[in-house]
Formats: sequence, structure tokens, C-alpha cells
Amino acid sequence: MNNTNRDSITLPSELGREKAVLSLAEKWGADAFRDSDGTKLSDEIINSGRDIYSTLCLVRADQEWARAHPEQTACKFLMSRSLAARGETLEVEPMSTYWSDCYVPDTRKESFAYWEVMDRTEASLLSPAAWNYDAKSGTVTISGTKKGHLYTVSFMVRLIWDITSRHNYITNNWTGEHIMAVDPSYPETYKHLMSYFDKWLEEHPRTSVVRFTTLAYHMPSDCDQDGKKGVYADSYGYTDTVSPPALAAFEEEFGYRLRAEDFIDQGYNNIVDRVPAKRYRDWMAFTQKRVERYARDLTGKAHAAGKRTAFYHGDHWIGMEPYKPGFKDAGFDIVIAVPHSEVTIRRLTDGPGNYVRELRMRPYFFPNELGVMDPAKNSQQIWAKLRRGILRNPIIDRIGWGGYLSLALEYPHFIEHITGLCDEFRLIKAKTQREKPVSYFKAAVISAWGKLRSWTEWSIEGEKFGSTENATMTLECLGGLPVDVEFLSFDDIKAGGIPEDVKVVINSGDAGTAWSGGSYWQDSEISATLREWIAGGGGFVGIGGASAREFQGRIFQLGDVMGIEKETGNSNHCARVPCSETGEHFIKMDAATPVKLGTERSFVSLRDRTAKVLYANENHVLMSASEYAGGRAVYIAGLPYTLQNARLLLRALLWAGREEDALKKCFSINQLTDCAVYSNAGIMAVANNADSHQSTTVYDDCGNSHTVQLAPYEIKWLNLKKKAYKVGRKGAKSVVA
Amino acid sequence: MNNTNRDSITLPSELGREKAVLSLAEKWGADAFRDSDGTKLSDEIINSGRDIYSTLCLVRADQEWARAHPEQTACKFLMSRSLAARGETLEVEPMSTYWSDCYVPDTRKESFAYWEVMDRTEASLLSPAAWNYDAKSGTVTISGTKKGHLYTVSFMVRLIWDITSRHNYITNNWTGEHIMAVDPSYPETYKHLMSYFDKWLEEHPRTSVVRFTTLAYHMPSDCDQDGKKGVYADSYGYTDTVSPPALAAFEEEFGYRLRAEDFIDQGYNNIVDRVPAKRYRDWMAFTQKRVERYARDLTGKAHAAGKRTAFYHGDHWIGMEPYKPGFKDAGFDIVIAVPHSEVTIRRLTDGPGNYVRELRMRPYFFPNELGVMDPAKNSQQIWAKLRRGILRNPIIDRIGWGGYLSLALEYPHFIEHITGLCDEFRLIKAKTQREKPVSYFKAAVISAWGKLRSWTEWSIEGEKFGSTENATMTLECLGGLPVDVEFLSFDDIKAGGIPEDVKVVINSGDAGTAWSGGSYWQDSEISATLREWIAGGGGFVGIGGASAREFQGRIFQLGDVMGIEKETGNSNHCARVPCSETGEHFIKMDAATPVKLGTERSFVSLRDRTAKVLYANENHVLMSASEYAGGRAVYIAGLPYTLQNARLLLRALLWAGREEDALKKCFSINQLTDCAVYSNAGIMAVANNADSHQSTTVYDDCGNSHTVQLAPYEIKWLNLKKKAYKVGRKGAKSVVA
Repeated sequence: MNNTNRDSITLPSELGREKAVLSLAEKWGADAFRDSDGTKLSDEIINSGRDIYSTLCLVRADQEWARAHPEQTACKFLMSRSLAARGETLEVEPMSTYWSDCYVPDTRKESFAYWEVMDRTEASLLSPAAWNYDAKSGTVTISGTKKGHLYTVSFMVRLIWDITSRHNYITNNWTGEHIMAVDPSYPETYKHLMSYFDKWLEEHPRTSVVRFTTLAYHMPSDCDQDGKKGVYADSYGYTDTVSPPALAAFEEEFGYRLRAEDFIDQGYNNIVDRVPAKRYRDWMAFTQKRVERYARDLTGKAHAAGKRTAFYHGDHWIGMEPYKPGFKDAGFDIVIAVPHSEVTIRRLTDGPGNYVRELRMRPYFFPNELGVMDPAKNSQQIWAKLRRGILRNPIIDRIGWGGYLSLALEYPHFIEHITGLCDEFRLIKAKTQREKPVSYFKAAVISAWGKLRSWTEWSIEGEKFGSTENATMTLECLGGLPVDVEFLSFDDIKAGGIPEDVKVVINSGDAGTAWSGGSYWQDSEISATLREWIAGGGGFVGIGGASAREFQGRIFQLGDVMGIEKETGNSNHCARVPCSETGEHFIKMDAATPVKLGTERSFVSLRDRTAKVLYANENHVLMSASEYAGGRAVYIAGLPYTLQNARLLLRALLWAGREEDALKKCFSINQLTDCAVYSNAGIMAVANNADSHQSTTVYDDCGNSHTVQLAPYEIKWLNLKKKAYKVGRKGAKSVVA
Repeated sequence: MNNTNRDSITLPSELGREKAVLSLAEKWGADAFRDSDGTKLSDEIINSGRDIYSTLCLVRADQEWARAHPEQTACKFLMSRSLAARGETLEVEPMSTYWSDCYVPDTRKESFAYWEVMDRTEASLLSPAAWNYDAKSGTVTISGTKKGHLYTVSFMVRLIWDITSRHNYITNNWTGEHIMAVDPSYPETYKHLMSYFDKWLEEHPRTSVVRFTTLAYHMPSDCDQDGKKGVYADSYGYTDTVSPPALAAFEEEFGYRLRAEDFIDQGYNNIVDRVPAKRYRDWMAFTQKRVERYARDLTGKAHAAGKRTAFYHGDHWIGMEPYKPGFKDAGFDIVIAVPHSEVTIRRLTDGPGNYVRELRMRPYFFPNELGVMDPAKNSQQIWAKLRRGILRNPIIDRIGWGGYLSLALEYPHFIEHITGLCDEFRLIKAKTQREKPVSYFKAAVISAWGKLRSWTEWSIEGEKFGSTENATMTLECLGGLPVDVEFLSFDDIKAGGIPEDVKVVINSGDAGTAWSGGSYWQDSEISATLREWIAGGGGFVGIGGASAREFQGRIFQLGDVMGIEKETGNSNHCARVPCSETGEHFIKMDAATPVKLGTERSFVSLRDRTAKVLYANENHVLMSASEYAGGRAVYIAGLPYTLQNARLLLRALLWAGREEDALKKCFSINQLTDCAVYSNAGIMAVANNADSHQSTTVYDDCGNSHTVQLAPYEIKWLNLKKKAYKVGRKGAKSVVA
């Protein structure tokens, strides 16, 4: 049976399989088709009466131009590996650990002037007179070296292979030519791209939506010398936006000259986890403005041509972060994201702007994604997590898929599953009418980045240790909770303190990273403001390396507030404060046994006898709760995402914020379920996040309880009593649909 | 059957149980009796024809003097707990977290001048005008405070209760008067102690050995306000040696005035694990000299009276460290130590000086030590570990016990066990004739302390986390290996490099501690010297936080040498270098499966593809081996003491030092056994360290192999072939006794 309701679904087309594509589009109720990078739409599709999304990556669209202007690609700084001097000279081949297919050393005079040689053993910059580069052999010869010292060469390269093109070569065995992307920071190229786009618009009369991918600068991703394996990648990095004209313009605007080291960052490349330096943030601000101008020029042209515009948040974030001031002015009508978890959903839905929000769902219809496990099961698990986020702010407008639709034909039950998913998605839209459900209160997540990196997730595979207490795990737990969330930077706190409507502050992440805050915790204004705010009645939830910065006898700068301290080997001879678990506490009232907090050895010990240990492994405190003057604080050693840990976090937030009574309303007792109450719509969603049958008791917005039975992953909609009934009989059951 | 051989054994006497004591003394062959703190010897014992050790703690011997001069006790600096200001003034009761029975705030003018109030939130010292101390209420009032800032008061106290006396009160329920110790830094007290000692010598004509305990200054040990539990203790601390005259003399001699903060050390109290500051080391040097002078005065008087002197290394180390230059000049004839492991033995036997080395064995004959588990089994386990150390340098002269001998009567099998132990000890002495056995080569352990803290162990109970990768664990493994060990400080390395006879350098300990080196690793001279030395053929074994110091893009400053790096959350987006275990390697050739390295999650990853991963848990490298130019390096994430890990360490050292062939001689294959070859004596010891029967193959100094069967804990002695036989038939068996 085909769906007569064409609404909210975008599907990819597939050349030669138009019949199958159209049949699935009918079945799932698709109202739009899209092409992909490298595929074209046939007339059969174009004429099917649906919207047409056409993909455009302008910076790599005209290879002829690119090859005619190879010096007008983006550049970046790379660091050679560290080499030790064993005599008075040292030869370094800067490119030896990089793949020469991707990069060419940039020896133009204005680029070469940025090259640097550093003595990493004494953190000193060598005079240009102390080294020499032989372009023919690709070798830097350093003279006057010190024995046993490590030296690195920071050098500029031109990016001669677009990263998406390279990715398809490596991962998908594409064998076409190496695509080169040009850099709009060159005025000549900028002008060319604009006229190319004018022509493109003319040539695409049937296109309803121009879908921009890799708008200007690709996210950084470096290959090692074998070209097999990425050595570094960062969705949020700004390193691949360098060029001589941009650097010169920066110097003009900001009044100082950047150095290679500002990008190299001791080899950390200003990865998003680093506490960002002022100079790097200046570069970001500079680049955001120029990308914004470029985006406005393009969206303006598209609108003038009567088309809508879509921005694909994937390989390109630079200057286009949805929480960046001015993002909504860039002129995009649609923003498309690939959602990994609740975190992506919250990022998309909590952000400002009235654009259409569209999800490019997983799994992609590629053999490597559909074939790995039962695709329906895989999709259902992902969807359950996304739905948690969507229910918190149901303003996702559209969903869609990518890849080869025909592959789905091999999995009939998967087709049925997608049919149901599309219907469920449309039902959520219809029931909730974009209403934000009841939330308990507002929490603030504080980090060095603040708002710009709201709901940031690690989407890159290849993290060395997924098991560190990273901030994303906390956000996954948080993303499905009925709590409003604001992201604050430490600079925000310095400028304006904690906003009045914030009940609880969350600080989570590895010690010494941008997420927990690192050096910011040595700033007396930060720790004093927070301490005083908590003492005055605020709540604090610290996770992992919360407030960690070794300073003045403390690792945790709010350790006095939390009643704990981290042991790093400098105070092992201090005796233990006896560490025994508190049997009963609001926070652990319905906790799983045993709790799994991702670590057994936190090296955190109790420091204040009045603090309560909720969970411990021998002397390692895993979770604690403390009263601090008028406020409260909770410490959690780690919080990997599970539904149980999400519940623990909810309870920690409620306890810290003195909002324990919140659970008497708008609450589903069973931890594997969620509920969301939409007062205006007079409706309540109860969702089963588990793949087994679940029973739960839910409380509506009046505190009335009702028992609900849910099939695996089922969502049920209960009608709320009319507001007038609020004054009715205590404990009365709500009327259920 | 009584032992007719009275030799090398010291026993405690016990009032009223003289018959039992004498009977055990006969049985075990004791040649000396001793009294204890607080007990006296009866004539029956004194006249038994044995040496008499008489205990003297001079600084607490004359309580009448102490009470008449209460201002002449030692002082120390304490830090109040951190308190946050919530307004413009803050009241702090400095003593509120300390037990008032132990300390009295020292408000004498010259002491009070040292008091300090610190703003810990901005690391600033407050002007004395900003605070006021009211002695009556014991309260410091700070004015002009900043909201949310933490303040501490560093204040001087007089120690009014000797720590040993307090310990007996707390632990052993002694109820006598609170003993007070006086401080020889007061000239009047110094003079009095000297004349008191003159008189004491006169009154103890039958004493053969004056056993000094708590010579001048007790190790620091602080109680919390309840007096129940120690909050801080450090066997090696110099904090309890302060007094106005000593501080004044220091200022005179060193030309600068110390501050309270030099002792408070942000609250870390200069614990032995801290990288010591220059100013603290100046105080140590100053105190070492004055304690040495005092010791020499006392030993001189004892010798003049025809008596020998013994120094008890237990509660007093200050100025009396056996590796301190000049220790042997202090004039002690006997040094007594309580051995915990191989580490104590190596400390005692590797140190310079020709004094008699005596062990006060565990278990003590106290109900809480004898009664906990089978005392014979307990003693045998301890002895097996001590014997490992003794065999490496058999110059322990005497052993003995403490406590109440009569308690042993309840455990006849324990009495038999001690009989055997005494005989075994005397046999080791007789067989080895103090000869140092064959060792493979010399390794150097490098730390911030170097020689002064050679073979330092954590002997204090109450460590928060015994599970950190602390340096003592490595030393326990090392203590039984046939390797000569020298301890070097980083300053030694800066001054003279690595000594020529050192084959392998070991760096072990938690990151940021004195053991691994902390800030020293940021010193370019240190890392460059070591890197160059390794490149030139040296071996490096890094354990735990070896070379760790975040600097210039590296956590491990010798990470390039070891081919690894520690992840702290700043480079998680860098892709993994594939981490697969090398199947075969010299180091793991006979390793236990699975190895237990004390940690499963090291957050150490492979950085250099040429390095080999010997053990890993997913991406966490637990052990690796690398070639670096002409040298080699091994990294081990943790090394808790087991016989298996001691073997792993031996193999790591041999591999790093390119001495793999060493195992063809002087080696026992079975990891639960040890052997030691005494060439001059023509003898080889083979010891079973396990409590089960063991079979092993041993290689003698010519490489001849022999199979040996050993009963639990048995030691066997094999005669070596005469040197002449060395040229004999290859593979010939050695002649066995």
C-alpha cells in the first residue's frame, strides 16, 4: 500500500533504477528527490512532481579552472615529525610523514615567509638564518643544532586533493581523477565562482533547492605517508583555511601577524578539544566573517533565481556553525545534518533560526552500512536515540536518506520498517505541532567554547580512546532529558556571571581540555564566581575532569565545593578519609546495580567528611554529593551513555537544583522509557527506548499517574486532562486516549 | 633442643616472663637482649651473659625538663583548611581541623612573624595588616576579602605531644601521661640533653649498646580534630624540625629568610613524593648538618664510655638518611631497620658505611600482628621477600624481634619456624661470607631525589590509592634482581651525565612526582642528555609516568625514544596507530598469561610504527619496546610487585641493555625461584620464593645447567665447579653439593 501523504521525506535518486526509486518514494511518502555528489537525476525523477534538491560543491565544481590556477587552492600548515639532532646539523624532510598526493610544499615567497623551525626541547624559534630549504630534495637543513634536542619544521602546503574526493578514493575505491578544490580567498577565484554559479543556476531550471556541500573549506583530515590511514581529523577545525591573501588580510584587520605556530599549536593543531588560544580564535572570527560573506553572496543569487538553499552540515563547518552569531543571516532555507545521537538533534533544534531542519538518516543505503547487521534493527536503534532528542524539541521538519535506494529491495522488512518510521515521524510532527514540551528547569553547560560549540559531538571515527570521560558522553545522556540547556563559555561567565534562569551548572570533560576548561580554572574570577554562585544556592554537577587544573594545592579547583580531590601522586601519604557508600539517596533511588560509570579507578578521594559518597570502588569515589552553603554539588567520575546513566544524570541535576519534586509530574518511572508533555497540544508522548516490551507509570502535568504498556520501541500518545481538571480530585487518573 | 650457637640474634626482654624469654633465647641462639620504649630489663636478663641494648630517646627522656621548658619543643607549620569568603571579612579558626592535644599555636613574637594568610584563589600572600589573630578565641579575622576566594592561614605550632607517645595512645591504648619531646635546637636544651646523657651513661654500666630512637626529630604525622585518624604522615619529611632559633640560624647561614609557604607547600607539606624545591632542600641540608653534629656529640660520649651505639631507622630519618653524605661519620656502630620488603634490605645493604646492619623483623610479637593470620606463614612470606634482597648483598649482620616474646608460646609451630629462620639466616652468613654475588650489570634509577632517597619505600599505611604506578613497586621488583643499582638525581645528570658503567636508566613513578621527575623533564639539558645517551647505545626503561611533563606537544618527553604517547584528551581526534601485540619477544619469552600490570587502561598509544607493542588492552599500550638509534627503550604502564613482574623487569633491563645473553649464566629458569652466584666462595644459592614445591634449572657462572628440586621456601646451596673447569666440556653439569 502506497502512502498517499507526500510529506517531509527526501530521498536520493539512482540512475537506471528509477522505477524502484519511485515505488519506494510512493510507499514512504517522499516529497523531494535529491542527487548526490557525482550522480545526476533523470527526467523521470525530475518530472515526478516532487521537489528537486541539487547538490553543488562550488569550490570543486570547475576542475578546469582549478587546474589552470593550481596556486589558488587553500593552504594549511603542517608540522614535520620531531627529529633529534645528533650532531651540529640536522636534515629534516618535512613531507616524509605525509602523503605527497595530497600536499605540495608552498614555497611562494609570501608563503615561505611563514615557515618555521622550532627547537621543541627548549621551546625556541630558530632564526631563519639557521636553516635552509632545498626544494629539489625537499629537505630542510638546520645548522648549529644542539645534540639530543628535538626539532620540527612547520611548513605551508597547498592542498592539491580535495578531502572528500580523497575519502571516496580511500574508502569507496573511487578511481576518478583527483579533484582539487579552489579557495575563494583569492579574488580572481571568488569572482569566477560567482559567475560559475550564475551559469549553474541558469542551467538548473528544475532545481527547487540548491544543496551546498563543502561550501568553502573542508574540515581538516590528514593522511600519513602511506595514504591508507588518516593521522588527524577534526570536524570543527579551522586549519585548512589558510592562504597568503587571507593571512595578509588578517594582519591588516587585526593589526598583528599570525605565525605558523598559531596553527601548528605544538602539533595539536588547535583540535576542538584544546583550550583555544586568543590568536586562534581571532583567526576563527576572521574566517567566519569571510565565509559568511561568501555564503550570503551565494544564497542571494539562488533566491534571486527563485530557488531555496540548503546547507549540508558535514564536511564543512568552518564559519557555518549553527550557534555562531549571524548564522541565520547567511540565508540558508534548509539545514541538513547527519544525526548520530540525541546530541545532533539538540544541536539542530536548540539553535536559533527559522530554517527548515532536515536529517540525513543513518544507515546510508551503502553496502557497508546496510549489510553489516540487520538494517531494520540498526535503524530502529538509531531512531530511538534520535527520537529522544526530537521529543525534547519537535521542530525537525524533514528526514531523508542517502545512498542507493535499490539496495533496500533486498531487505523487505527494512522497507516496512522505514515505512513505519516515516509515518511515526510525521505523526510526531502532527501531534506536537512544533511545541516545546514541559521542561523542569534550565541547566548551563560550561566550557572554554561555550555557545559556539553547543551540543558538539565527536563524529570522527578513530578516536584513540573512546573510553576517556569525554564531554560528548554527558551530552548524549543530557540530550534526552526534560531540561533546557544553555552553553556558556568561561568568558561569558567573566562578563556576565551565571544567567538568572540557570538552576544547575554542568562541567564535564577530560582534565585540561576545552570541555572541562583547563587553564580557565586558574582564573580567580571563574572559580570565585562559580563558588559564590553555588554558595548562594546554585547547583553544580561535575563530571570527569570538572574544574580540574593543578593550582595552589588543588587539582579540582571546586574540590572544596564538591568535597573531593583527585590524587595525582603528590599527596598519597595523606590518609584516607573513610569512604563508604551512602545507602539511600535521591540520586541513586532507582539506579541500576551495579552502576557502570566507565571507570573503576577514578583516583578521586573524599576530602570533606560532610560529602556523601554515592558510589565508590574501594577508595575510588565514583559519585558523590555535597551540600555547600546554600547550594549543592554532585561529582560523577564518568558517565558513558546508557539510559540508566541518563536517569542518574537527571536525578543528579534535580538534586543539585533542589528540584526533587519535579519527578511528581511529567515523568515516566521506567528508565528505559521517556515521556514528554505538550501542554498546549494537550498531549503526552510516552516512548519505549528499548527493544523489549516495557511497562511504566507516567505522571502527567497535573501529577496524575497512569500505567502504560509499550511494545518494543513503541511510542504512545496520551491526551492530557483539560487544564480545568487541574483543581480536581487528588490522584485522579488522567483521561487517556 | 637448644641452639648452642649464640650468634646474630637480638631479642626483646619481658618483665615477669624472664624464664620464657631465656628459654626462647637459648632455642634461637640469641646473643643480645634489648629493652623497649617503656620497659626495663631485670637482673636475670642482664646477667644472662648476652649483650644488652638499652633504648634511649633523649629528647623525650626528661619530662621534668620538658614541662619546665614547654617553649623549647620543636615547632611546625600547619595550614588551616581552605575557607571561602562570602563577604568582606572571613573568620578562620586555624586549629579547627587539628587535634588540640597535639599542637599549641605558637604566638611568640619571633614565631608569629612567620604566620601567613594566603588567598589561594589567586595565589597571593596577604599583607599582615589585612588580618588579625585573637589568641583567646583562636580566630584569625581577615578583612577586605574577595567573595568566593579561598583563604588559608599558615601558622606555627609547638608540638606538645610526642608522636610516638600519641601513637601508643591511639593504637595501643596506652593511657600514661602525654610525653613531650624537646628540641635540641635550643642551646639550653642541647646542653641539658648532653649532661643528661652523661648521667645516663653513668647509670647504665651494664649496657653494651645504646640504642637511639627518635634521635632528635620525629617524622611528621598529623591528627585530625578527632584525634582518631592521621591526616598526614611522611617518614621522610622535614617539616617537624622548625623552631625560631633554627629559622634564625638558617637565615644567618643561607642569607635569606624562609617563609611558612616553604614548609606548607600549598598544603602538600613537601611530602617525599613532591619534586623538592630548592628552598626546601636548603632547609634539609641545614637540618642534616645540625642533626649530624648532635649525633656525633652523643656517639662520641657513648664511645668514650666504652659502649657501642645503635641507630633505629624508624620514626626518625631526619638528617640520618643512610645515603646522606656524612651519615657514616655520625658514629653509629649499628643501624637497625624494620624491613618491609627487598627494598628495605637493598637500602640497608647498598648504602655506604661499615656499621653493623640489623633487622627488626616482622611480625612484631604483638597480639595484633601475631594473631591476625598464621604467624609462621606470615613470617615465612615476609622472610622470603627479605631473603631475595639479602642474597643480592649478604651483609645483613643481625636480625631480631620486638614485642612480647611470651606471646609466641601460644604458637609452638611458630617457635619452630623462627628456630629454622634463625638457622637459615646464620647459614646464609656463613656460606656467603659477605660476598656480593655476580650481577649482570649496573642500572641507574633516576629521580628528583637521586642518591639521598635510594631504595625509598612507602612504609606508611593509609596511602589513598595503593594502586597508583608508584615507584616503590618497581623497586620491589628490582630489589631481588642480579643487577647493581645506582640512584641518580636529575641534578647529578646535569652535572655529570650518565656514569660510564651504567647500562640502563630506569625512570619510574607517577607523572608529576619526584620519582618520575615532574618539572625536571621540561629542562632541556635533562631530556637532551638522556636522548643523546640512549641514541649512543644506552638502555631506557620507563614505567608509569616516565619522563612525563606536558610540554611542547608531548606528555612523555622521551616519547620519541619510546615510540609512544600518553593521551590526555588533547589529541583524541588523532587516529590510532594500529596497536597489535608482537607475538614473540625476548622480554615476554617466559611471561605469565595474562600479565598483570596493575592497569588495563593506560591511555598510552603507539606513536612510532617501528616500536613493538608487547602487551596492550585494545588501544591501550601496556608494554612496548623500541629501538632508538643505537639504543633501546622499554615502556611499562605499571609494574606491581609479583615474582612474574620482577622477571619481566629483568628481561626488560637485559633487552634494553643488549645483555640478553646474560641469562645463559647465573640464572634460574623458574620465575618463582632466585639464584645467586658467589664466585669467590665457590657457591651458588637457589631459593624457592613460593610456598609450593618448585623445580628449576639453574645455570652456574660457567653456563652449566643443573636441575634443582625445592621444597616450599627452601634454599639450596650448590658448590660451583672450580674455575679451572671453566674450559671443560660444553654443557657439562656442575658438581653439586
